[in-house]
Amino acid sequence: MKEVLSSDTPIGWIGTGVMGLSMCGHLIEKGYRLTVYSRTRKKAEPLLNSGGIWAESPKEVAARSSVVFTMVGYPEDVRKVYLGAEGILEGAKTGDILVDMTTTEPALSREISHAAMKKGVQMLDAPVSGGDVGARNATLSIMVGGDLDALNHVLPLLEVMGKNIVHQGPAGMGQHTKMCNQIVIAGTMIGVCESLVYGYKAGLDLETMLRSISGGAAGCWSLDNLAPRILKRDFNPGFFVEHFIKDMGIALKEAAASGIVLPGLALVHQLYLAVKAQGHGRSGTQALILALEQLSGMKR
Amino acid sequence: MKEVLSSDTPIGWIGTGVMGLSMCGHLIEKGYRLTVYSRTRKKAEPLLNSGGIWAESPKEVAARSSVVFTMVGYPEDVRKVYLGAEGILEGAKTGDILVDMTTTEPALSREISHAAMKKGVQMLDAPVSGGDVGARNATLSIMVGGDLDALNHVLPLLEVMGKNIVHQGPAGMGQHTKMCNQIVIAGTMIGVCESLVYGYKAGLDLETMLRSISGGAAGCWSLDNLAPRILKRDFNPGFFVEHFIKDMGIALKEAAASGIVLPGLALVHQLYLAVKAQGHGRSGTQALILALEQLSGMKR
Repeated sequence: MKEVLSSDTPIGWIGTGVMGLSMCGHLIEKGYRLTVYSRTRKKAEPLLNSGGIWAESPKEVAARSSVVFTMVGYPEDVRKVYLGAEGILEGAKTGDILVDMTTTEPALSREISHAAMKKGVQMLDAPVSGGDVGARNATLSIMVGGDLDALNHVLPLLEVMGKNIVHQGPAGMGQHTKMCNQIVIAGTMIGVCESLVYGYKAGLDLETMLRSISGGAAGCWSLDNLAPRILKRDFNPGFFVEHFIKDMGIALKEAAASGIVLPGLALVHQLYLAVKAQGHGRSGTQALILALEQLSGMKR
Repeated sequence: MKEVLSSDTPIGWIGTGVMGLSMCGHLIEKGYRLTVYSRTRKKAEPLLNSGGIWAESPKEVAARSSVVFTMVGYPEDVRKVYLGAEGILEGAKTGDILVDMTTTEPALSREISHAAMKKGVQMLDAPVSGGDVGARNATLSIMVGGDLDALNHVLPLLEVMGKNIVHQGPAGMGQHTKMCNQIVIAGTMIGVCESLVYGYKAGLDLETMLRSISGGAAGCWSLDNLAPRILKRDFNPGFFVEHFIKDMGIALKEAAASGIVLPGLALVHQLYLAVKAQGHGRSGTQALILALEQLSGMKR
């Protein structure tokens, strides 16, 4: 289909938040030539200092690259970066491959993929899980939707950023898989936080309680990783409340559009909106417990 | 405090359902002398055939034993077995230790414990997690409330039935810990089942989807153990829907009594009532997905 990737393959990167900085940084470390764009140039400085070349727009990144990665914020950012006047599709050339690693709407991924295909360009949706730690340690799980040949072509690049890279089907299926991931997490978070509220009020020693329950049928990542932070009242973000709200909102919108009722997810979404309304949008998702404590009139 | 346990210590067992049969069976295998009572004598036959001695009432079991275990069904069964006219406290003698392994109301455990203490008898609440498999393999997690000396005295017996045996505090705290366990599970179950409903409707290959999400932040026991059963449409019980409804009901009652609001648990409780109303009370807890599919008008 196209030349095999080499360290000479010109690669583009758009979006240099906490995740993007680490992920793009790994590619530069491996010796790839990166062209970089970010809404705020200052945020890209660490990459420019280690060899990345600045471009003035997504269009310019695409014009100079044969593979372009994006890791931006909200669906409207994704739309602008790909479909805007100075967007990627304005600069992309036949045979290019575009990889959106943002968590965004499956319908938007399909829309961009179709627009790209009209220019002979393949677009993959490849959202990740594993958070800032996974990005830093290159252990992200990457869920890919889109053309399988295109995935195989860029696989060596994805392998620099993550470990569990799975093709989930045509365009949008990577995003759908990420939604499944977030729906499970919504459940584990409400379970863990309500359990801690109950246990605290019951007068249990919460660490001792966790020793009884973490190894059994209640066992989950959130219990192992976030419950201990809650006990220390550490609400620093591993994953931002407001980003989780965005993801749950996407899942609920997709669910409603396809006639699916998700009462648990809807409730957790509402409770996280309360967490944000109470001023904790930039806290970690474990801050859910603050809204539950508030609901029960608990002062801690 | 009292003589060290030996194989001559007379031990009583009340309640021979799936769990009780396995647990009591392990004690008999280890060479202990067991006196056994069950509401339905026929259910105790396997134990009587392997050396257990039948008694005609809980009172008679207690009169013949210095340690008595109970593993019955609902709080009203626990009340009758301990406090009824032919109940354990009628037969118990100073120095005896009673161990209720049923999941029941923390307030009831405290009530029985206080009544027992008036007779110089210690009562421990020691509910378990790990299900039928944990009971069979003697790998149960046991959460204990009550007097620590009493626990240490019977510890060799508990170690025949389980592995992770943790003292959680005074009377009732074992039950409270079990409630924390069930609250987390309620969250993981709604998350896992809604995720599968969403993924199915989105057209994902669900096994491939699970490969992407099980190892990360969505990882949980329910995803590993129950999602695969759901994919096979296997609703055989590991843990009965109607028992889970009982447990969630206890947690919600305790929460309401102590002024705690648990919206997630309340929702999951309601959905499980729907599962039961639709005829699946004796199915496994993974049958939650049936009510969710019904809600969304899905026919599978």
